[in-house]
Amino acid sequence: MSENHKPSLEVCLSPALLHLYDVKNSIVVIIDVLRATSTICTALYNGAARVIPVASVEECVNIGRAIGGITAGERDGRIAEGLVHGNSPFEYPREFIENQTLVLTTTNGTKLLHMAKDAIQIITGSFPNISAVCDYLVAQGQNVILGCAAWKDRVNLEDTLFAGAVVNRIKAHFDINCDSAIAAETLYNAAKDDIYTFMKQATHYKRLANFGLEKDIQYCLTPDGANVLPLFKNGELIAE
Amino acid sequence: MSENHKPSLEVCLSPALLHLYDVKNSIVVIIDVLRATSTICTALYNGAARVIPVASVEECVNIGRAIGGITAGERDGRIAEGLVHGNSPFEYPREFIENQTLVLTTTNGTKLLHMAKDAIQIITGSFPNISAVCDYLVAQGQNVILGCAAWKDRVNLEDTLFAGAVVNRIKAHFDINCDSAIAAETLYNAAKDDIYTFMKQATHYKRLANFGLEKDIQYCLTPDGANVLPLFKNGELIAE
Repeated sequence: MSENHKPSLEVCLSPALLHLYDVKNSIVVIIDVLRATSTICTALYNGAARVIPVASVEECVNIGRAIGGITAGERDGRIAEGLVHGNSPFEYPREFIENQTLVLTTTNGTKLLHMAKDAIQIITGSFPNISAVCDYLVAQGQNVILGCAAWKDRVNLEDTLFAGAVVNRIKAHFDINCDSAIAAETLYNAAKDDIYTFMKQATHYKRLANFGLEKDIQYCLTPDGANVLPLFKNGELIAE
Repeated sequence: MSENHKPSLEVCLSPALLHLYDVKNSIVVIIDVLRATSTICTALYNGAARVIPVASVEECVNIGRAIGGITAGERDGRIAEGLVHGNSPFEYPREFIENQTLVLTTTNGTKLLHMAKDAIQIITGSFPNISAVCDYLVAQGQNVILGCAAWKDRVNLEDTLFAGAVVNRIKAHFDINCDSAIAAETLYNAAKDDIYTFMKQATHYKRLANFGLEKDIQYCLTPDGANVLPLFKNGELIAE
């Protein structure tokens, strides 16, 4: 902590940079806006009992079978072979997901979540639950690392924008000595008046728009549509 | 290359991400604005015969002794033990550096330069030679990677801002499908009206300002004070 006794707030723009951060002494927020962490909070908001994030499709199938869970995940934007559902938050309305277990595998978000396993606490963040995330971080008073899942380790706009939005909201409560946090907030301020239009430049926007997923993107960029806090405990994400 | 037959322009925000880029088929621009690449172009602009970038202080001392060169380099902002000069561009006026060889070691820039050794061509960029860099890249018509030296692999504001300035100037000639390039240009556009004030937030500004180096920073953020193109050939940087 700094001399002013505020905890630190840092942004990690790619999983390939996470080793540079003091994960063990921080709460880590996993950010995979399009669409894993938006889907996780949506499923929990709609009453899912838990979400089990797993790395591989095989693990997803096996765990899903063992516990009677709903298996979901995509590879390169399409439902992975052997799984039943995808990463769209619209696949998980209350009438479908309530009291169910969702077993979810995603390329980027799940990987980062497992990399951060030694953190004080792991939560997941995205625009649909941004207020819950910010309230939690301020209340905890611990060091925070905002961990962008990125795209195959490449920095992406959507996760950086979300990190910047969080910095913008809660920076008064933290000591910020991190250029990535300043860059992310500057990016967010440049984009915030019309994030959806800004995102049309993004590589991931183009990939998803090719699959007709503009509605997903719009939802995933809108604050507080599923304002719940997913906490990672014992290998599961549950609503706090 | 893309369907529109323009070469690609990408930004790599940290050496720790360089493996994600196709270095072999690109011109790589090494960017270490504060202060290695600003100093390199200044020395060459003022008539240095060549700059030999080396990784270690020991190598710097040995090569400097063998060829009668000027040994220079810093570690954590101070002249490294055993070397005679530092990283300030103001140490290299024409009356001192003309026809001399500068043997320079820096933590971040030199490392990245050696990592990019398989590129089609390596040049160095910084605000003092931004026009020379942009003119060269447009004229070559090859794929380009703008490689930020960063700070011990952490993304920094100054190198990202310079990358964004280059994107802003030459993007019409390239195909940009890189979120880091869009983020860098957005950052540059947000900062460009007063880059010096914007940079006062940066971690590296604070480090250097503690050493009284505001004048260095101002120079390193000002376009075209030493508008020459440093080309890396056979282990040496020479003015094109």
